[in-house]
Amino acid sequence: MPTDAARLERALDALLPPADAIPARLHAAMRYAALDGGKRLRARLVYATGRLFGLPEATLDPAACAVELIHAYSLVHDDLPAMDDDALRRGKPTVHVAFDEATAILAGDALQTAAFQALAGADWPDAAKLRVLAALLAASGSRGMCGGQQLDMDANGQGLDLDALRQVHALKTGALIKAAIRMPAELAGADAAALADLSAFADDLGLAFQIRDDILDVEASTEQLGKSAGKDAAQDKSTYPALLGLDGAKAWLAQLAERLPRHLARFGERANELRELADFAVSRGH
Amino acid sequence: MPTDAARLERALDALLPPADAIPARLHAAMRYAALDGGKRLRARLVYATGRLFGLPEATLDPAACAVELIHAYSLVHDDLPAMDDDALRRGKPTVHVAFDEATAILAGDALQTAAFQALAGADWPDAAKLRVLAALLAASGSRGMCGGQQLDMDANGQGLDLDALRQVHALKTGALIKAAIRMPAELAGADAAALADLSAFADDLGLAFQIRDDILDVEASTEQLGKSAGKDAAQDKSTYPALLGLDGAKAWLAQLAERLPRHLARFGERANELRELADFAVSRGH
Repeated sequence: MPTDAARLERALDALLPPADAIPARLHAAMRYAALDGGKRLRARLVYATGRLFGLPEATLDPAACAVELIHAYSLVHDDLPAMDDDALRRGKPTVHVAFDEATAILAGDALQTAAFQALAGADWPDAAKLRVLAALLAASGSRGMCGGQQLDMDANGQGLDLDALRQVHALKTGALIKAAIRMPAELAGADAAALADLSAFADDLGLAFQIRDDILDVEASTEQLGKSAGKDAAQDKSTYPALLGLDGAKAWLAQLAERLPRHLARFGERANELRELADFAVSRGH
Repeated sequence: MPTDAARLERALDALLPPADAIPARLHAAMRYAALDGGKRLRARLVYATGRLFGLPEATLDPAACAVELIHAYSLVHDDLPAMDDDALRRGKPTVHVAFDEATAILAGDALQTAAFQALAGADWPDAAKLRVLAALLAASGSRGMCGGQQLDMDANGQGLDLDALRQVHALKTGALIKAAIRMPAELAGADAAALADLSAFADDLGLAFQIRDDILDVEASTEQLGKSAGKDAAQDKSTYPALLGLDGAKAWLAQLAERLPRHLARFGERANELRELADFAVSRGH
C-alpha cells in the first residue's frame, strides 16, 4: 500500500494536464510547482481525517489534491521577487527562477483554478461537494490564506506583537490546515460537535506547525531545510522565537503538543493517525 | 430601472468585503480593481442571456459578479511589471501602481477566489450551481483564459500567424465571453441545440471583440482609450491589423457583424438584447 504522500503524488499527476499539452510552458510550470513536493502535511491530514470517518482513499483524493494545489499556488506567488523573493524551495529553484516571473504568476493563478476544479469534478453527492467547496474557498480567499499573506507583507519591517503574529499565521497557514481537516469531515457529514473538536485541533495544530517552522528557520542550515534558512532574522521578521526567545517558543510548542491529542478524545483510537500527524508537526526536523 | 452595468456595480459592492475589513489594504485593492470599471460587457452578456431564458436579474447577479471578478483579476495580473507592465487601466493607475506589486498579486489571487465564492454562495439549485461553476472554472484555468495569457506571453516578439493568433485570443478573451453566455444558459437548463447556437455566437463575438480592440489600439489615443494606446505596435505584438492590414481587419469585422445575428435565429426577438450587444462589441468606440 502506498503512503499517503505517494498516493497524493499519483493523484496530482493524473489530475494535472500533461506537460506537453498546450500551453506547454504553463503546464510544465504547474507540474514543477505541484509535484514531488514537500511533506504533504495537508494531504495527509485529509486522508487521516477521512479515514477517521471511514471514507475510502479514492473518495478523498480530490480533496487532498485541491488543498495541495492551493498550497502550491500560494508558495509560487509568495516566492516571487515582489513578495518574499525566494530563490530556493524544497531544494529546487523556485518557479520564477526555473521558468520566468510571468510564467510563475500564471502558474500560480492556474493552480488555484485547478484546485477548485478538482473539487467540482469529484464524484461526490452535490450537496457534500458544495460544502467542501465552500470550506476550501473560505480558507483560501481574502479572509483566509490570501489575507494572511497580505498581513504578513504589511508587517514587513514592523514589529508585531504576539496577538498580531497569531492572527497572521491563523490566516496564512492555519486556515488551509483547518480546511484540510474540515473538508473530509464535511464530506462525511460530521455533526457540529465533531466539527468543533476538529476545528480546535486544527487551530492548535496550525499554531504548533508555525512555531516549529520558525524554530527550524533559526536552527537549520539552508541545505538541511531545502529553502533559504535564516531569512526571518535577515529580514527582521516577527517570529515566535524573536518574540518569546528560542526557549520560550519551545516551551509553548511543548504545551501545544500536550494539548493537541485532548481535542480528539471523542474519536478514541480512530483518531490515532491524526495524533501521529500532530506529533510529526510538532517534532519534525529538517 | 438601473442599467445592467449599474446593477452589476451595486451587486459587486455588496459582495466584496468592505474596504476597512482586515486585511484592509487587500480589500481596498480588490475593490479598486473590481468596482467602477469598464464596459462590463461580460456582465451585460450574463444579464441579456439570462433574460432570453426568462431568468430574473436577481438570480443572475452572482454569475454577473463572478465573471467580472475573474476578468478584473486577470487585468490586475496582466498589468504587472513582469507581464504587460501597464501603468494605466480604465483611465486610472493600475493596481500595482496605486498600491504596490505584492498587493496587486494578492488582490488578483483573492479576486479569483471571490469569483468562485460568488457562485458557490448563490441561491441556486445544487445541480445548476455545479454546472455554472464548472463552466466558469474551465473558462478561467490553464486551458482557458490563463492559458491564453501564457500563449500571449510566449509569443512576445515572435510573429504569430493568423491561426496561432486566433488560438491565443480564443483562450485569452474568448473563453470568458463564452462563459458569460453559457452560465445563464446552464442555469436555465438550456438544451444542447440552444447551447450550441449560443456557443457559436459567443465564439464569433469574442473574435469580433478582439479585432475591434486591436483596431482601437491602432486608431485611438491614450486619453480616449483610458489605457496606454499604441502599445501593441510599440511592443511588436501580433495583432489582426498587423497581420491583415487595418482595412483587412475591418473587412473581417464587418463579415462577423453580419454573421453574428444569424446564430441567434432560433431565439427570435427574445435574443434582441444579445444582438444589440454584438453590435456594440463590433462598433464600440473609445
